[in-house]
Amino acid sequence: MSTSRAETADRLRRAREVADELDLDAVVVTPGADLRYLCGYAAHALERLTALVLPRRGEPLLVVPRLEAPVVAASPAGALDLELLAWDETDDPFALVAGELRSRLGAAPTTLAVGARTWAEHALGLQRAVPGARLELATPVVDRLRAVKSPAEVAELALAGAAIDRVHARMAEWLRVGRTEAEVGADIAAAIVAEGHVAVDFTIVGSGPNGASPHHELSDRVVGAGDLVVVDIGGELPSGYRSDCTRTYVVGAPPDQETVDWYAVLQEAQAAACAAVRPGVTAEAVDAAARDVIADAGWGEAFVHRTGHGIGLDTHEAPYIVAGASTVLQPGMAFSVEPGIYLPGRHGARIEDIVVCTEDGARLLNGGPRELVELPG
Amino acid sequence: MSTSRAETADRLRRAREVADELDLDAVVVTPGADLRYLCGYAAHALERLTALVLPRRGEPLLVVPRLEAPVVAASPAGALDLELLAWDETDDPFALVAGELRSRLGAAPTTLAVGARTWAEHALGLQRAVPGARLELATPVVDRLRAVKSPAEVAELALAGAAIDRVHARMAEWLRVGRTEAEVGADIAAAIVAEGHVAVDFTIVGSGPNGASPHHELSDRVVGAGDLVVVDIGGELPSGYRSDCTRTYVVGAPPDQETVDWYAVLQEAQAAACAAVRPGVTAEAVDAAARDVIADAGWGEAFVHRTGHGIGLDTHEAPYIVAGASTVLQPGMAFSVEPGIYLPGRHGARIEDIVVCTEDGARLLNGGPRELVELPG
Repeated sequence: MSTSRAETADRLRRAREVADELDLDAVVVTPGADLRYLCGYAAHALERLTALVLPRRGEPLLVVPRLEAPVVAASPAGALDLELLAWDETDDPFALVAGELRSRLGAAPTTLAVGARTWAEHALGLQRAVPGARLELATPVVDRLRAVKSPAEVAELALAGAAIDRVHARMAEWLRVGRTEAEVGADIAAAIVAEGHVAVDFTIVGSGPNGASPHHELSDRVVGAGDLVVVDIGGELPSGYRSDCTRTYVVGAPPDQETVDWYAVLQEAQAAACAAVRPGVTAEAVDAAARDVIADAGWGEAFVHRTGHGIGLDTHEAPYIVAGASTVLQPGMAFSVEPGIYLPGRHGARIEDIVVCTEDGARLLNGGPRELVELPG
Repeated sequence: MSTSRAETADRLRRAREVADELDLDAVVVTPGADLRYLCGYAAHALERLTALVLPRRGEPLLVVPRLEAPVVAASPAGALDLELLAWDETDDPFALVAGELRSRLGAAPTTLAVGARTWAEHALGLQRAVPGARLELATPVVDRLRAVKSPAEVAELALAGAAIDRVHARMAEWLRVGRTEAEVGADIAAAIVAEGHVAVDFTIVGSGPNGASPHHELSDRVVGAGDLVVVDIGGELPSGYRSDCTRTYVVGAPPDQETVDWYAVLQEAQAAACAAVRPGVTAEAVDAAARDVIADAGWGEAFVHRTGHGIGLDTHEAPYIVAGASTVLQPGMAFSVEPGIYLPGRHGARIEDIVVCTEDGARLLNGGPRELVELPG
């Protein structure tokens, strides 16, 4: 299910309402998830300015290099009847945007909000063109919308979850004693695409001591008998929605008793955080639910990161599940719950599911065992 | 050949010299080509701040989320003995950077330059933390260095050119009458990786009328007998350096005489621009060399984009070969020469080589025929 024209048009309308409420004279988003969310255009991020401009008054404007105008017409954005400003190679697109804003607003804008991931050269280019405007982030507008998923978006995230679950279910084909992390990672990457993604976001295969590095990069380390292996993988569906799921494996020999004991703590922590998810609870309370279990068992120092992050058209987006985050959960918010325990020099483990907050609590979008999965090796 | 520790250390030293010359109190670059160029760290761009901070006085600083500190240590940046500032999930990394800058400079910075592709949330986060500083782009510092390639960098670009040439040489395997652009593109993408790249940057397969859209996205259009097909493809080597090469094919039937005639003009234009490349010539003069040939033959309106772009750790980077660009070419500058002729509703063609400016003129890093390549279909 891809996002309907009506749903996209509604996002545009709501973004403009929130921007008005926040006294923003213009919101400008550039290629990436913000642009795709608000108008359906999945543009490549390049140096030539492509931007959706939402002025406080007057019609929105899609600014594109003229050579890419046919691409916009062929994209879902082409069905939105957006006014197109196609600029030529020797034009100054920032000056053109400034002129259009002045004309729509009847004056130069005094506040100008840009996407969180808009490149500095574009943000500062716009600021130079409207020197009286205060430059801000569009995060309060865009994140308020993007953080709460529609049923169509949840359906896409569920498809993504099922696709990455199918990859984990095949792990015994690739994750074997004697193979390098890089070899295993290459096989996983091919399977991520084969199982329905259009692109691989990341493949973390942290074997043995490398599992103690939460964002470990694939290496030439050879998997040994008895190794714990953290496998954290994700990709992008054709619709742009993302998968992200971590399971921890033990290969070729059973785990020792100490590992069994602390892994049970981790599993209890992950389940506790999932159980804490419901409307009205804060993001930091979900983080604390996992952290308290791990700390109470004496492993608090080994859990070195936040409990989770929102997911949608970006792999990491609002809401963040972290101490200090007072965001109140609402139905439709989707995020990871992924506590970990890391023992430097030895090994690590992480359990990650994507969950959606519903009126009845967390709906898990991943399946498969959260137990330490023993592979024959 | 990967970049040596000595070469990377020299880049850091020169960047600091240029920044001092330009009166910049601090230069801050974030994940992407700037960061990889200056310290060898090929970090993923994520919401947590990772940044190389070059203060005008005192030692440089690599700022990383604590959970990624082991990844830095394992990267080439680990060999540079950079001071590491590892921040925890509940820290404010912008405040930490501001404090380090004040301590090194003996005062708050008054000028702060960020990478052109630094995300707005990071750029504005830094600006909030040093409210008295003027925010600028680090482009004048970083581009001055990155635009002129060292022999090691030219060697990598030559490897990339040879790799993408091997993909073009196999085009008859995939580009056949009756197949869709998407099918052809998927085969090309697999071959880009098989021929030595670690990632695909883009696969443009513009068949028939789609060839008139310079940045056409793969579609379900079926290639027909006699179609012109623009194939513009590129990828990333393990070292991070990029390939980018366009050839135009005609499939299953010979071209008509009009096409033969205007294609000859295009080929002459591309050769003229390559012949114009030498030290001391401006970028706009190279653009004009191609444009004049096409305009003089009466096809000027059909050449809708600039002649080229620099290439290195990014596919598009300085110098840009475009009207108005007064950049004076120097030995070591590497860029594309890629004029095109686009006839909306009918078809298009483009010829693209990567060239390096040498004392003796252009060294072409791509081979293979620039003629319209006839495939059996």
